[in-house]
Amino acid sequence: MSISLASAPTPSLQSAPAARLTPGARFAAVRTQSAALCQPLLPEDTVVQPMLDVSPPKWHLAHTTWFWETFLLREYQPGYQVFHPDYAFLFNSYYNSLGSRVNRADRGTLSRPPLADVYAYRQAVDAAMQQLLAQQADTLPPAFWEVFELGLQHEQQHQELLATDIKYILSTSPLAPAYLSEKVNAGNKKQSGSESASFSTSDSPAPPPAAWLPVAGGVHRIGFEGEGFCFDNELAPHDTYVADFELQNRLVTNAEYLEFMAAGGYHDFRYWLGEGWDLVQQQGWQAPLYWVERDGQWWRFTHHGLQPVNPAAPVTHVSFYEADAYAQWRGCRLPTEQEWEIAARQFGAAPTAGTFLESSLFDPQPLPPDASPDQCHQLLGDAWEWTYSAYHPYPGYQKAAGALGEYNGKFMINQLVLRGGSCATPESHIRLTYRNFFHADKRWQFTGIRLAR
Amino acid sequence: MSISLASAPTPSLQSAPAARLTPGARFAAVRTQSAALCQPLLPEDTVVQPMLDVSPPKWHLAHTTWFWETFLLREYQPGYQVFHPDYAFLFNSYYNSLGSRVNRADRGTLSRPPLADVYAYRQAVDAAMQQLLAQQADTLPPAFWEVFELGLQHEQQHQELLATDIKYILSTSPLAPAYLSEKVNAGNKKQSGSESASFSTSDSPAPPPAAWLPVAGGVHRIGFEGEGFCFDNELAPHDTYVADFELQNRLVTNAEYLEFMAAGGYHDFRYWLGEGWDLVQQQGWQAPLYWVERDGQWWRFTHHGLQPVNPAAPVTHVSFYEADAYAQWRGCRLPTEQEWEIAARQFGAAPTAGTFLESSLFDPQPLPPDASPDQCHQLLGDAWEWTYSAYHPYPGYQKAAGALGEYNGKFMINQLVLRGGSCATPESHIRLTYRNFFHADKRWQFTGIRLAR
Amino acid sequence: MSISLASAPTPSLQSAPAARLTPGARFAAVRTQSAALCQPLLPEDTVVQPMLDVSPPKWHLAHTTWFWETFLLREYQPGYQVFHPDYAFLFNSYYNSLGSRVNRADRGTLSRPPLADVYAYRQAVDAAMQQLLAQQADTLPPAFWEVFELGLQHEQQHQELLATDIKYILSTSPLAPAYLSEKVNAGNKKQSGSESASFSTSDSPAPPPAAWLPVAGGVHRIGFEGEGFCFDNELAPHDTYVADFELQNRLVTNAEYLEFMAAGGYHDFRYWLGEGWDLVQQQGWQAPLYWVERDGQWWRFTHHGLQPVNPAAPVTHVSFYEADAYAQWRGCRLPTEQEWEIAARQFGAAPTAGTFLESSLFDPQPLPPDASPDQCHQLLGDAWEWTYSAYHPYPGYQKAAGALGEYNGKFMINQLVLRGGSCATPESHIRLTYRNFFHADKRWQFTGIRLAR
Amino acid sequence: MSISLASAPTPSLQSAPAARLTPGARFAAVRTQSAALCQPLLPEDTVVQPMLDVSPPKWHLAHTTWFWETFLLREYQPGYQVFHPDYAFLFNSYYNSLGSRVNRADRGTLSRPPLADVYAYRQAVDAAMQQLLAQQADTLPPAFWEVFELGLQHEQQHQELLATDIKYILSTSPLAPAYLSEKVNAGNKKQSGSESASFSTSDSPAPPPAAWLPVAGGVHRIGFEGEGFCFDNELAPHDTYVADFELQNRLVTNAEYLEFMAAGGYHDFRYWLGEGWDLVQQQGWQAPLYWVERDGQWWRFTHHGLQPVNPAAPVTHVSFYEADAYAQWRGCRLPTEQEWEIAARQFGAAPTAGTFLESSLFDPQPLPPDASPDQCHQLLGDAWEWTYSAYHPYPGYQKAAGALGEYNGKFMINQLVLRGGSCATPESHIRLTYRNFFHADKRWQFTGIRLAR
Ligand SMILES: [Fe+3]
Ligand SMILES: [Fe+3]
Ligand SMILES: [Fe+3]
Ligand SMILES: [Fe+3]
Repeated sequence: MSISLASAPTPSLQSAPAARLTPGARFAAVRTQSAALCQPLLPEDTVVQPMLDVSPPKWHLAHTTWFWETFLLREYQPGYQVFHPDYAFLFNSYYNSLGSRVNRADRGTLSRPPLADVYAYRQAVDAAMQQLLAQQADTLPPAFWEVFELGLQHEQQHQELLATDIKYILSTSPLAPAYLSEKVNAGNKKQSGSESASFSTSDSPAPPPAAWLPVAGGVHRIGFEGEGFCFDNELAPHDTYVADFELQNRLVTNAEYLEFMAAGGYHDFRYWLGEGWDLVQQQGWQAPLYWVERDGQWWRFTHHGLQPVNPAAPVTHVSFYEADAYAQWRGCRLPTEQEWEIAARQFGAAPTAGTFLESSLFDPQPLPPDASPDQCHQLLGDAWEWTYSAYHPYPGYQKAAGALGEYNGKFMINQLVLRGGSCATPESHIRLTYRNFFHADKRWQFTGIRLAR
Repeated sequence: MSISLASAPTPSLQSAPAARLTPGARFAAVRTQSAALCQPLLPEDTVVQPMLDVSPPKWHLAHTTWFWETFLLREYQPGYQVFHPDYAFLFNSYYNSLGSRVNRADRGTLSRPPLADVYAYRQAVDAAMQQLLAQQADTLPPAFWEVFELGLQHEQQHQELLATDIKYILSTSPLAPAYLSEKVNAGNKKQSGSESASFSTSDSPAPPPAAWLPVAGGVHRIGFEGEGFCFDNELAPHDTYVADFELQNRLVTNAEYLEFMAAGGYHDFRYWLGEGWDLVQQQGWQAPLYWVERDGQWWRFTHHGLQPVNPAAPVTHVSFYEADAYAQWRGCRLPTEQEWEIAARQFGAAPTAGTFLESSLFDPQPLPPDASPDQCHQLLGDAWEWTYSAYHPYPGYQKAAGALGEYNGKFMINQLVLRGGSCATPESHIRLTYRNFFHADKRWQFTGIRLAR
Repeated sequence: MSISLASAPTPSLQSAPAARLTPGARFAAVRTQSAALCQPLLPEDTVVQPMLDVSPPKWHLAHTTWFWETFLLREYQPGYQVFHPDYAFLFNSYYNSLGSRVNRADRGTLSRPPLADVYAYRQAVDAAMQQLLAQQADTLPPAFWEVFELGLQHEQQHQELLATDIKYILSTSPLAPAYLSEKVNAGNKKQSGSESASFSTSDSPAPPPAAWLPVAGGVHRIGFEGEGFCFDNELAPHDTYVADFELQNRLVTNAEYLEFMAAGGYHDFRYWLGEGWDLVQQQGWQAPLYWVERDGQWWRFTHHGLQPVNPAAPVTHVSFYEADAYAQWRGCRLPTEQEWEIAARQFGAAPTAGTFLESSLFDPQPLPPDASPDQCHQLLGDAWEWTYSAYHPYPGYQKAAGALGEYNGKFMINQLVLRGGSCATPESHIRLTYRNFFHADKRWQFTGIRLAR
Repeated sequence: MSISLASAPTPSLQSAPAARLTPGARFAAVRTQSAALCQPLLPEDTVVQPMLDVSPPKWHLAHTTWFWETFLLREYQPGYQVFHPDYAFLFNSYYNSLGSRVNRADRGTLSRPPLADVYAYRQAVDAAMQQLLAQQADTLPPAFWEVFELGLQHEQQHQELLATDIKYILSTSPLAPAYLSEKVNAGNKKQSGSESASFSTSDSPAPPPAAWLPVAGGVHRIGFEGEGFCFDNELAPHDTYVADFELQNRLVTNAEYLEFMAAGGYHDFRYWLGEGWDLVQQQGWQAPLYWVERDGQWWRFTHHGLQPVNPAAPVTHVSFYEADAYAQWRGCRLPTEQEWEIAARQFGAAPTAGTFLESSLFDPQPLPPDASPDQCHQLLGDAWEWTYSAYHPYPGYQKAAGALGEYNGKFMINQLVLRGGSCATPESHIRLTYRNFFHADKRWQFTGIRLAR
């Protein structure tokens, strides 16, 4: 008898929809990706909520569907009838404009509607959307296309959450079940140049030592400009002043983080912010999330089950508090989001170099030993980089009118900005100006550390 | 599209195993019953834990299996290998003697092992048990047979919990899904004499007014004596003194309880115990659990979905606090467990007259209009009757040695005794001496009210 | 500099008012006692509430005054004006009949009215009461005298709470301040026959071994009968049946309890009720409340500061859970309240033999080495004795009409009966039929253990 | 009988110590100020902690004393013996470097040491400090003088906390006691030009409408530079870029805030940050802290008891959430701390124009009707101004070595910067570069609103 997912195939995640595709094809590609991510799951996996931050996959599948139904079908498809009158109550996430809803904390108490009904909901909404796109593409107003683009991006955001929430859900069982039954053979081919690169293991060759890259201070322009989609929180583009600074040319590795641990980093309050130190004590943190020590060796839970910690790979699943304490211990600091964006623009980060959702690796990958010390690596993909910048509105920020005004603006307090995307971010979803945000104590996202000074 | 369980057949619940069957047949009958109860469920329904008291059905299925494995197979089957080394951690309920275990509050966070694995576990343990029973029946010691009998009773207890936990799980969804898709045609045939009695509806004929039956006081003997199984908490049999008292000859009905509600019972502290009144305020109780008011009429969630409250049926899903407040309002009181047992012995209660699990009605049934005023009705089955007696040890109570000493004794504090079984109790499981016990605030069991004075 | 109460004189506690005194004299004696208990306190001590169960002494002083004002002056003194319109809100304890009030948990957040105002309140109410008693004693109806008697008893109950709450308040400071600055010289003269008996110390001579006293079973009458005051919860007198049993002739000593501790009693779940074991783990209980270990010796906080544990003295400040676990470990059990009262009546317990509030010892005293093995000692005074009986209504119990109906009845759930009074109980307040009640986890009262079997 | 503080004189608060005084005189002046603030209090007022943020005044008096003892006497006075060995445990606030301590939440559970002992502690430490200053002033190293200056500033910070904590403590009683018994006659003489200005009342003349003052964007220098004391969090001085913006020339008034309330501001989620809206719902916020509505009029609790809301005065006791919601409703925003400081430098704010602690008004004062529209008023004093800037380290920020490194740095997360000081800030304590910080939900400080756009 086996409790592993022995027969579960790798989800067929595909490169994100290119802009040259038709709207219908782009829509289909994104929607398919969400379902593909859930394909290795059992129905049981799709309903539980082991902690407040984690939503059941069934809920993600339904909520993203509700988004299309609510913001596009009900608005633009004449005579559209909602799939089920209770689904707005069940699958509205946080839009006060759209009425009362299930408490976020109770998402894991609901076994119904069953997964099959949620898939039926997806199919019905997909069909209606395709019909709308096919029949009325020419007459739909610009406002439609704006929300259509937002819907694609929204669904991609939930794909990242699906990846991280699935990981957390599977991790809570002592059985440590693997989401993917074997090491993935697709690998990070772009980076390694190999067709057969696979999930990084504990004997990966060490990356070169981190190098400090200087960035000249002065007034720089940041924020999104130009063509294409951006979230409202990336606006308005504006000038900002930074002093000269230096940024490390790669992410902090597990090997480096293990030095912090070995030096007693989790036991010395001097490196920690006060609220972080309280958490360390209350939660008994001794290592990043998902790490367990067995017989003197550190293992960690991954989408591929329990695996040895790979010293060469970037450390991930650390809170802001841990990232900051690590930096303090090193005598360095975390960059601000302004510094990060200025450096990233200067160093010409491109998504082609990173590990993204489509790789099915679900793990930040080690930098090859021959990586150039003059380049800035891993800026996009692999792991979100905590910045020491509050998630506040940019100068000139404007909330959208209506319910979509609740999309970003109301969260602009008590959170920190993360930059660069992760191995769970769809490749087409990330930008240098992208502002992700989480509370300082969160660890279940693929969050990592890049040092500044 | 339908969210109801349209195709779910009525679970084939069968009369409990008679003593004349072989041990293997009795074992098979009880084990089959548990699985049959879960048969209408989807995998999604079997993993959630919407409140602390409710365990996921998957957990019940596995825990009862672990009980057999732990207390019989590991003890008596030479060379027995446990099905999975982690299952003792996952499915031990509360036996400190048997090591650490998943927190009770976390049972609903575990999607794994999946339901299919739990059924495989059941099959493996069933096969091993049948092999043991077939091959060694003659040589197994009396201690084996004692625990074997306990195992059957234990599994029956979890069948009642399955019935009540499933109800609660399905109730949390606004979809109000039905466990059984149509009104059951089996009915309470014993009572009504009709082959086609069905789920009671809101137009049932009213039962006769409650009559007071006198019971002569004095020293009476209570507790279990004689042949057959009993739990240790029914021992030792002992004398007890009660004064003359009167007991009502049937359960309190919904119609009667609605009078209490209409009289402002939930808004007048004078009828309530202090801790009960606090709960009424904090929880906003206005009616029994599962009741909802729509357009001036009361409905309640049942195993058959949302149904109108039937005035003729016994009120159920009330806490001890509500039962006591109702009695206070009526100028009566609840009986003690001594009074209840003395009266039940005198009135010759027999299980044949009540509604039990096997009826698949999952609802206390109304007394027929022609029920005799001289008899004491509904003592067994239909609804557990709150007594104003603490669940404390009887004189001469002795805990068993070893882990099974934790079965009952350690719960003998802060709970109240309930008597008589319910519509979710297997018929062969109940006795006049049976002592069930719950905290005063619990409402998710089929609990009802019988008045004394 | 000294933080002790070096100059605090022993409060002049006097024997309780005898029935032969005039009502005015009895009233004055009881009222004076309350103030005398607070006399060693500083204003700072009278306002804090270090845990929910503990009320600030200032609150006790005011609440008892409010009781007289509310139930007698407002009812029987024509034209009486309340002292302050807000005091009913501030000093009503739990009478829903009398309107909204400060949350019990917030009593320690109120610095105002200051202590001086509360004393002024006491004086004004005392004067009005004396005037009423002097001028209208002949015309006051029986109902007045019933509540008058209840008021005296109520104030005595709060005197016991003052003694135990003051102890807890002073205990929370690391300074371990003494309520009484020197060892009291009044002692337990009745028991020891010495005029100069003093606070028991760690070198007291050991009491004789506990002897088992047999009590014949059968139907016995318990509950209050005859002349004089009793609380409604001691009614109605009624017959009860008990089997033959044996009771130990003295309280369990610290020496005996230390054996339980040395045998690992706090680390072995087998002796504990489930909810008790959970508490032991959560709270880290290792010994009775107020015990601290220093350099291998056990000390405990007392009204006389930190003192070594006296092996000869009765153990006190144990919860029901600890009392029961101790009994389990000894292979015995706790008595029921019926057994306790039947035995106490048979053995002729009299208050003259015990340690009460008036001794100013505030500590249960050791039994002298020459105590007779044939007598039952320490039944009244010294330490409340946990019984394994729920605090439920007696047969025939009737709540009073009006607000005083809330005095006792609404607490008759989830608590256990304690019998016999303690070293903090006024001598005139206790009776063999007296039923005190606390939740099983409470430890701040002077609670002790007597074994049965 | 009166519960008010009828005889309590106005505390003799004096202008802050000027730099030209001797160290001993400056020390004495600051220390005297702390005690003077507590002079109107009763001992009962000095021990309670009605909410976590509020510390008992007795604790403030002792903690500030412990600061001098710990950081100067123990370091620089040879042979110094601490006043009491337990006081470090009792009065250390949050310095992990200095060992374990009373939980912050438990400060209000400790009645001992009594207030008199704390005053004795203050006297002993004051005497030792004066002796040290007198005898060794010439030989004390620069490090001493740095901490000496910090000690003065630290004590002034606690003076502001004393003022706000006393207000909260007195507010919790329904008696609404006044800290100061009559309207203060010292007034805001600097601003009004009158010697007899008094506590502002509800018939103050309205201030002129707010005017928008433009500030030219560009790179500006902020942070502390030059002579004199600053906290480490004001360093390093650095360049920052802001775009052109406008700032209102005065604080938002109660009249303006009442318009927000009347427009349903507390009932419309659209104006609120998500976490703020949750609080509004959970706490039932309807108005600023301390406001109560009686018979259709708004009153508020002040140091002078319950007073009508004065429409002309600046609104205060609002959280960041309320400040931001108000700004959103007005179609404006809050300034960043960079904008605030740049504007304040440009407009030449001087403390002479504001209301400070020394006025004994304890209330922000209305701007006179003839205030110039071209000037920026109320920048210093009156009310702290919420900025939409996170309290994060400035570029180049360095924590001090040792325990004092815990003074500021470890709080640099999840808080917002407030600027400008308040009516409870000592006048000599404030600077244009001063960065105060609180969590977004805090309301018990004198916090107000200035709009930007
Ligand atoms: Fe969403
Ligand atoms: Fe079980
Ligand atoms: Fe009372
Ligand atoms: Fe401080």
